[in-house]
Amino acid sequence: MIAIASRKEVAELAGVSEATVSRVLNNVGPLKEKTKEKVLAAARELGYTPSSLARSFARRRSGNLGVIMPYLPKARLFSAYYFSEILSGIGSRAREEGYDLLMIFRDADEPLDYCGLFRMRKVDACIVLGAKEEAGELAALRQLKQEGHPYCLINQHFAGEGFHEVDADHVEGCQLAVKHLLQQGFSRIAFLNGPQAYSNSRDRLEGYMRAFQEAGIPADPSLLFEGNFSRRSGIAAAQAIAAQLERIEAVAVANDRMAIGLQQGLRELGIPAEQMPAIVGYDDSDAAELTTPALSSVRVPFYQLGEIAAGKVLELPESGSGDTVQEIIQVKLPAKLIVRASSLRLGGIQ
Amino acid sequence: MIAIASRKEVAELAGVSEATVSRVLNNVGPLKEKTKEKVLAAARELGYTPSSLARSFARRRSGNLGVIMPYLPKARLFSAYYFSEILSGIGSRAREEGYDLLMIFRDADEPLDYCGLFRMRKVDACIVLGAKEEAGELAALRQLKQEGHPYCLINQHFAGEGFHEVDADHVEGCQLAVKHLLQQGFSRIAFLNGPQAYSNSRDRLEGYMRAFQEAGIPADPSLLFEGNFSRRSGIAAAQAIAAQLERIEAVAVANDRMAIGLQQGLRELGIPAEQMPAIVGYDDSDAAELTTPALSSVRVPFYQLGEIAAGKVLELPESGSGDTVQEIIQVKLPAKLIVRASSLRLGGIQ
Repeated sequence: MIAIASRKEVAELAGVSEATVSRVLNNVGPLKEKTKEKVLAAARELGYTPSSLARSFARRRSGNLGVIMPYLPKARLFSAYYFSEILSGIGSRAREEGYDLLMIFRDADEPLDYCGLFRMRKVDACIVLGAKEEAGELAALRQLKQEGHPYCLINQHFAGEGFHEVDADHVEGCQLAVKHLLQQGFSRIAFLNGPQAYSNSRDRLEGYMRAFQEAGIPADPSLLFEGNFSRRSGIAAAQAIAAQLERIEAVAVANDRMAIGLQQGLRELGIPAEQMPAIVGYDDSDAAELTTPALSSVRVPFYQLGEIAAGKVLELPESGSGDTVQEIIQVKLPAKLIVRASSLRLGGIQ
Repeated sequence: MIAIASRKEVAELAGVSEATVSRVLNNVGPLKEKTKEKVLAAARELGYTPSSLARSFARRRSGNLGVIMPYLPKARLFSAYYFSEILSGIGSRAREEGYDLLMIFRDADEPLDYCGLFRMRKVDACIVLGAKEEAGELAALRQLKQEGHPYCLINQHFAGEGFHEVDADHVEGCQLAVKHLLQQGFSRIAFLNGPQAYSNSRDRLEGYMRAFQEAGIPADPSLLFEGNFSRRSGIAAAQAIAAQLERIEAVAVANDRMAIGLQQGLRELGIPAEQMPAIVGYDDSDAAELTTPALSSVRVPFYQLGEIAAGKVLELPESGSGDTVQEIIQVKLPAKLIVRASSLRLGGIQ
C-alpha cells in the first residue's frame, strides 16, 4: 500500500506544528531530540517522504534563507511599507518551510561577495532586494548565477541576464494611474518618479509614456521630476510643482511616501484645497487611506512577491548540485489601481 | 609611543567602510582576502587594537545577531510600527558592528530551544522580542541566563528574574496620557489595553490607575477593555464603547493601531464628530499624524531601544566564557506625550 500523507498529517500525528515538521525533515534549527524522534516516527508511520528528505540528512545545512537588503544610515528600512510587506511575505513562507531569515545589509562602498555567503554556509538560498543597475551589483549577481546558487531577485529585473526574478508589472501599474487621470480630463500630468537606477522606476516611466501615447497626446518632458522615494523628497518636489501650478493639473507619483510628502508640502506652501492638483500615489500603503484627501494609489502585491520568491527559491536545486539545466524563475504579478478622493476632480475638497 | 586610533581612522586609511573594518576584526562574514589584508595592515599601522581583536581569531564566530520574534500566521509582523522601528534600530547597530541579523520566528505550540541557537553556532548573541509571561518562555530565558549566553529582552520585563532587559517606562507613559485627559476635565476615561500576558500591558494599567489615584478620583473597573493590538480589535471595541457613550468621555488606548481602529469603528457606527470621545493612542507611529482628527499619542523610543539593546548585547562576554560575574543590563527609557487634535475638547471637529 502506498500512503501519501501530507506534512499537515505528520504534524497532527506527532502533535507539533508544520514548521517543526519542516525543521526536522530539513535538519535545520535547534530541536529537542524527543521532538525529532516523534516527527520521524510519525513520518515513517504515515509513509511521508518529501522530496527533500533524501538530501536532508546527506549534509548539515544552515537552515537560513538570506535576504540581502540595501542599507542607508539612519533610514528606517524596516519601516518602509515596501520592504516590510515583502519581508512579511518572505518570513511567512520561510517559516512554513522551517527556515530562519538572515538579513544581510549591503555595503554602499564595497559590494558584498554574495557567493561567499554560500561558501561560508551562512545561507542555503538568498533573495536580493533593492538591487540597482550598477557594475558591482551586476557582477555579484552574475557570479551567483554562474556558480549555480539558489537566489532570486524581487522587484528588479536586468534585461538579457536571465536572472531568477519575481517582479510586479510596473509598466501597466503606472499606465493605469495616468490613464485614470487622462480619463478625467486632465492632460497636463506631471510625474514624480524614483531614481532611474531601479528598473521599476524605468518601467513606471514607460507606463507613463504609454498612457499618453495611447491617448494620442504628446507627453511633456518638462513635467518629469525625480525624488528618492522618501517623504522628504516629496516635500522638496512640492516647491518645484507649486511654482508651475498654472500648467500642472495632476501628478502621478512613484510611491505613496513621496505622494504624502507632496500633499504635505503643497499644504505647507499655502496652496488651498481647491487648487490642489489631482494626485495618484503608488504602493497603496496603509497610510494611503488615512490622508486627507484619501490617496488614490496603485496596489502592488508586495506580500505575495515575497511569499512566491521564498517558495520558489527554496525549491531550487542546492548549490553545487552540478550543471543541471535549471528553469529560470520569471514571475510578474499585476498591479491594480485603487481610486480614492485625491485623484478625482475637486479631489482636494472632501 | 602609544597610538590610540579609532575604527573610523582605520576605515579611512584602508579605504573601506567602518562596517567592513568590523567584519574583518570580528572575523565574520564573507570578505575578499585583499580587503582583509588592507584592513589588518591599516589597523597595524595605526596601532588599533580593539578589545575584541584578541578573541576574534581565537575561534570562528557566526557573525549573526539573533532576533527572536513572535509569529502569527498571516499577520504582517514587519509592518507593525513597533517591530519595524525596533528592528531598524537593531539592524543599524548590528551593521555598524559588522553583524548580520538572523530572524528566528517563535513557534506558538512548541517553544524554541533558545540555547540550541548558540550550541549550533547559529548566533553569537540574541535579542528576544515580544516575550510573554508564560511557562515555556520563562524556562527558555532562564536557561539562556544560566548557561551565560549573551542575550537581551526588549520591551518586556520579568520581575525578580534578573534578566538582561532594555525597556521603556510604560507606567509613566500611560500615566501621562490619562493625566492629560483628566486635566482637560474628562473623568470618565475608558482604557483599551493589550493582553495582560505582556508586562508592558500591566505597566500601562498601573499608569492608568496611578493617574486616577494622583487626581484623587476612583477608577471605574467597568471601563477597562482589552484588545490584541490589532486595528481589527480596535474596530471591535468601538461596538462596546459606542453602546456606553453617554458615560464615556475619553478613551486611552494601548497602541495607535487599536486607536485608529477605534476612530474608524466609531465613525462607521455613525457617531458624529461632536460626540466622539477624546482619544489618546500609544507608540506615536507614522500614522498618528495622518488620521482625522490627528491622533494624540505617547511616543516610545523604539528605535533607540533596538539600538541600545544591540550595542549592549554585543558587548557581553562570549558564551562559555566561564562564571565571570556579569553586570546585568537594565535600561529604562522615558516615554513622552504628543498632544494632537484627537484628545482636545471638541477634538472631533477640526
